[in-house]
Amino acid sequence: MALRHYTLDFNLSAPADCPTTVHGLQSIFQEQEMTETVHDTEGHGYLATFIGKNGRLVVLRVPAHGLLTIDLQCCEGDNIVQVENLLNTLEKKLRSLLHGNIKRVKRLPALTRGAAVDRYWPTADGRLVEYDIDRVVYDEDSAYQNIKIMHSQQFGNILILNGDVNLSESDLPYTQAIMGRGKENYAGKEVLILGGGDGGILAEAVKLNVYIDQMVIDGCRTHMRKACGSVLDNLKGECYQVLVEDCVPVLKKYVEEGKMFDYVINDLTAVPISTAPEEDSTWEFLQLILDLSIKVLRPAGKYFTQGNSANLTDTLALYEEQLGRLSCPVDFSKEVVCVPSYMELWVFYTVWKK
Amino acid sequence: MALRHYTLDFNLSAPADCPTTVHGLQSIFQEQEMTETVHDTEGHGYLATFIGKNGRLVVLRVPAHGLLTIDLQCCEGDNIVQVENLLNTLEKKLRSLLHGNIKRVKRLPALTRGAAVDRYWPTADGRLVEYDIDRVVYDEDSAYQNIKIMHSQQFGNILILNGDVNLSESDLPYTQAIMGRGKENYAGKEVLILGGGDGGILAEAVKLNVYIDQMVIDGCRTHMRKACGSVLDNLKGECYQVLVEDCVPVLKKYVEEGKMFDYVINDLTAVPISTAPEEDSTWEFLQLILDLSIKVLRPAGKYFTQGNSANLTDTLALYEEQLGRLSCPVDFSKEVVCVPSYMELWVFYTVWKK
Repeated sequence: MALRHYTLDFNLSAPADCPTTVHGLQSIFQEQEMTETVHDTEGHGYLATFIGKNGRLVVLRVPAHGLLTIDLQCCEGDNIVQVENLLNTLEKKLRSLLHGNIKRVKRLPALTRGAAVDRYWPTADGRLVEYDIDRVVYDEDSAYQNIKIMHSQQFGNILILNGDVNLSESDLPYTQAIMGRGKENYAGKEVLILGGGDGGILAEAVKLNVYIDQMVIDGCRTHMRKACGSVLDNLKGECYQVLVEDCVPVLKKYVEEGKMFDYVINDLTAVPISTAPEEDSTWEFLQLILDLSIKVLRPAGKYFTQGNSANLTDTLALYEEQLGRLSCPVDFSKEVVCVPSYMELWVFYTVWKK
Repeated sequence: MALRHYTLDFNLSAPADCPTTVHGLQSIFQEQEMTETVHDTEGHGYLATFIGKNGRLVVLRVPAHGLLTIDLQCCEGDNIVQVENLLNTLEKKLRSLLHGNIKRVKRLPALTRGAAVDRYWPTADGRLVEYDIDRVVYDEDSAYQNIKIMHSQQFGNILILNGDVNLSESDLPYTQAIMGRGKENYAGKEVLILGGGDGGILAEAVKLNVYIDQMVIDGCRTHMRKACGSVLDNLKGECYQVLVEDCVPVLKKYVEEGKMFDYVINDLTAVPISTAPEEDSTWEFLQLILDLSIKVLRPAGKYFTQGNSANLTDTLALYEEQLGRLSCPVDFSKEVVCVPSYMELWVFYTVWKK
């Protein structure tokens, strides 16, 4: 059972006549047969709750100055037209009561809390965004993570791993960015992809793919076909091989064997799911992968990877510091890219041996 | 004075032991010296408000089944670490009290209500999105509309007209889309731009620009230079002229004079601000502009315009219907484009004479 939560806020430009304002609204709540409880705020203005039928609740704050707020909650199945009419009536009444004393009126789109289809997936930099998600296509826990594939009206299916938006079927700009933005010629080259269980990169090129979570591959093969095409239907094709294994031992084996690649594309999720058993911190794990990746890179080879949100400048600076501490000296460039379903700009890195 | 509003929601998989759950939480509120008021919900489960110092308020709903919700409000200037610790304590306690009966825990990024810098600008299809806006650069009312220019960490300055995000300094994809995505050769051509007061298109090409709101031009000239460059510094350049006038009489004059253009780019705001005095509905106004624009288009000319959010399929269908009702028969194509600061995909149209 979900809850719809409406907010309506008035920024005041001068002190309000608190009793008159409150009195003007009370009649509206009485008409709705809502029961008022006035709370003692120890001088922080008028604060009351109004309880109505069917779990309806209004919280009304009328401070002497500053910000007047209304919260209106109703349960799923309540009459939405009635509820929105109540809010319209309150807004109209307040606009008239506070006439000349209003700096800003803000009414946000209602929050839907606890709904079967969760539309709120915050950005990496912690902002609230509501997606146009209309159904859950796939929702399973693997041994490693929660794997959701949800349908968005505009983006098609979206892969969400442990609450992080990973890739949507509209996110070709992500795949292009992590493959060097069309400036590379992959023909006849040997490419190592770490992660990329969604098959997006593999579908764009490819030779060899290393990934550990078979269930991500299974979910994407069925539900993200606009991103992965048919490449995940078979784990081995004419010119590629998908290894469903931990990439660290595989990389170590390549280093031992002296096996090298023209391109290494690190498409592991931005924050590693688990750092065990190799190292005890996320950053040390990242460093380990990075070091091994550069070791299997041919002298003229390129290493491509995603960074993080363009806004997480501290995180990005830490990563760039790491690039200076590899066993082999490297140079790097970075690019800021708009990935449609991310709702934030994303940084991608190209790294090469000095 | 702003209000921070936290939410914490638990979806339950089975009926909860309501009295035990409530009892387990009450001690936490007592420690915080918050005063409990239990409300009569007529059988809709436990609902209580807790009032603390400094205007702190908690609303707790513990229904017999379905969704347990917590709202926590605190005023600007309250100790945020303390407030978030309280929420952490409540979450931890509930995870233990409801152990084995939790389908989902959702804690959204806190809403900041009534802040000096408003970060919430809903999409055209009505979804809640929080921008990374950190300051107000410009905020003025012209005779026609409210003009805001706000600074976003990732997008640079954003032009917001009457609450609608119009263009950010990162939105070159918008300008490219409304100019035909680099497939047109503008050299030596005559181009008529309607709207476009932000100067983005003019900076990319141009000959002549018709716009009515001098204040948008003034604000953008100063604060949107990454979008408009220096083209708005003078209203007349070697190969362009900016007319700060209502575009309808100008278009009518061109029709009378038989003046024609190779390209007409309609960059008026998506929904006209006012339809007066020409016609009495927004759609009739759009139709008027469209009809006049096609009339001044050379036989091989192209008319470019933005449509609306890709999700507003009904609105787009209405517009396409209009295209079939012009005095001169036309064909059209459309393209869906990701405009970085829009947080939603946007449809652009190309229209030409049959």
